[in-house]
Amino acid sequence: MDKLVERFKNGEVLALSKLISMAENGSPLIDEILAEIEPMIGRAQVIGVTGPPGAGKSTLVDKLIRSYRQNGISVGALLVDPSSIYSGGAFLGDRIRMDGAYSDDGVYLRSLAARGELGGLAPKMNEIVSLLDAFGKEVIIIETVGIGQLEADIINYADTKIVLTVPGLGDQMQAMKGGILEIADIFVINKSDKEGAENVEIDLQTMLRLRQEQNWTPDIILTQALNNKGIPELYEAIQKHMNYLQQSEAGEMQTRRKREHACISAATKQFKRILALRMEEDGKIKEMMESVRQGKKNPRQGANEIINVLLNEGSS
Amino acid sequence: MDKLVERFKNGEVLALSKLISMAENGSPLIDEILAEIEPMIGRAQVIGVTGPPGAGKSTLVDKLIRSYRQNGISVGALLVDPSSIYSGGAFLGDRIRMDGAYSDDGVYLRSLAARGELGGLAPKMNEIVSLLDAFGKEVIIIETVGIGQLEADIINYADTKIVLTVPGLGDQMQAMKGGILEIADIFVINKSDKEGAENVEIDLQTMLRLRQEQNWTPDIILTQALNNKGIPELYEAIQKHMNYLQQSEAGEMQTRRKREHACISAATKQFKRILALRMEEDGKIKEMMESVRQGKKNPRQGANEIINVLLNEGSS
Repeated sequence: MDKLVERFKNGEVLALSKLISMAENGSPLIDEILAEIEPMIGRAQVIGVTGPPGAGKSTLVDKLIRSYRQNGISVGALLVDPSSIYSGGAFLGDRIRMDGAYSDDGVYLRSLAARGELGGLAPKMNEIVSLLDAFGKEVIIIETVGIGQLEADIINYADTKIVLTVPGLGDQMQAMKGGILEIADIFVINKSDKEGAENVEIDLQTMLRLRQEQNWTPDIILTQALNNKGIPELYEAIQKHMNYLQQSEAGEMQTRRKREHACISAATKQFKRILALRMEEDGKIKEMMESVRQGKKNPRQGANEIINVLLNEGSS
Repeated sequence: MDKLVERFKNGEVLALSKLISMAENGSPLIDEILAEIEPMIGRAQVIGVTGPPGAGKSTLVDKLIRSYRQNGISVGALLVDPSSIYSGGAFLGDRIRMDGAYSDDGVYLRSLAARGELGGLAPKMNEIVSLLDAFGKEVIIIETVGIGQLEADIINYADTKIVLTVPGLGDQMQAMKGGILEIADIFVINKSDKEGAENVEIDLQTMLRLRQEQNWTPDIILTQALNNKGIPELYEAIQKHMNYLQQSEAGEMQTRRKREHACISAATKQFKRILALRMEEDGKIKEMMESVRQGKKNPRQGANEIINVLLNEGSS
């Protein structure tokens, strides 16, 4: 294990991949490893890109990566597609990127699909982003398909949140008001040559005027990712937002929130691990859980009692 | 609050709706309420229906509900569509069902969309299902769009898991192997008049032969929900699976697993609540968290220390 961390520190991509897999699979060793590389964490600029299926996220991310590479900036990109069990989204995305265009060492790509896996991807995202960060990636792009939970979670690890939309989605705008509007730092209207792009822009502008006063007003960037149009403008908008974060309290606030979230998330993970352990080893808790399983004690009552045992008696 | 529970016990639909909203919004009162109605929980038959967008889940669920109603069985149906921020899935589903066909009191419908909400829907599903159960719904149908996490979670609250597919999804089958195959109790090939239905059936049969030996072999039902074809066969397959659960150890095992999961889920929820409280009120933990926010202490280190304080010193 020490050797693996050593290889990671030496910049071996295979070691990075191995550690990400360990995080993904919930290996208990990952906490120790992260503690060891902790001093190397916290320098990357993290960009979240989210939007509905078919909005052209993969293409846009692809073009962004090329822009960063042209400027000599190293990139890590994570594709999170929990819907890929069915849509094949992740596979398509992979194919686009597997054409050898990124054969240089400056790009690391990884698909994360929560394929029926219990426990969820979200708590692991923090760890995986930290690994890329510690590995020295200057920019980390996280692409998520638009689903409620992961989208909302992105606020906990992305510095700049880009929300993608396309003309012709109809009711989408209405629905977007729900929560996504509040977290977006930049809006992108992709496929802006399609009919209705102007209406989407007007709708977005209207919504932005209606939202509560904030210090940052999201840019709205029109792109045609496939034709490379609008990419420099988007690149610049991202830099502008980064500058804003660095020069205002917002950046510090965000960093504080991210750290707090990482801490709560790690504590909750540990709590679950301790609970699982003591369900096996602690006579009292074992007994309580068995009463719950048999229906002699209701689950919520059992939870109360277990919490009392865990919190009052110590973990000795 | 007592009055609300009283009204719930008297079968007032408005009280049920109110309590579900409270659970959905994470009201802290819900635990107390569930404890009070606990004796009424545990009688419903819970059916999970999952599948990719466009497979016809809503239509199929609609026809199933009608079948149950024709047999005088009361139904609660939950539509969980975390993708609805964009796809409009939930809205479409709502529209199908809002045509007044269910004006009878025997059906209760509810859409749950995790619209950008932090904290997630999954931990609340247990509570919402319990509310419908306690309200006296004999059958509860949960419809989820095919995303990894919720799909996997369905194993924790559904007795019978139905996985829907349609001809023409290509690589889908390949991807399905991942996890969904293991949790399915019944497969439905909907839109079975479309080209390729036979191939889907053959693929499924092959996969079922390859999976590890289990006591239950999932039926494969061909339906055309829109034309009412195959619905009686599906109805019967569900009954057959229920009978299997009742007559074998599998049902007891499943009940035990569901209770255990509900207990762990409630304990974790309480842990998070206590942590949030003590981050405010407990000098030591408050200080630790502030060090984490300021970057003086790394988040995982902070989590370790907080867990130690919580578990060693009691919650006094």
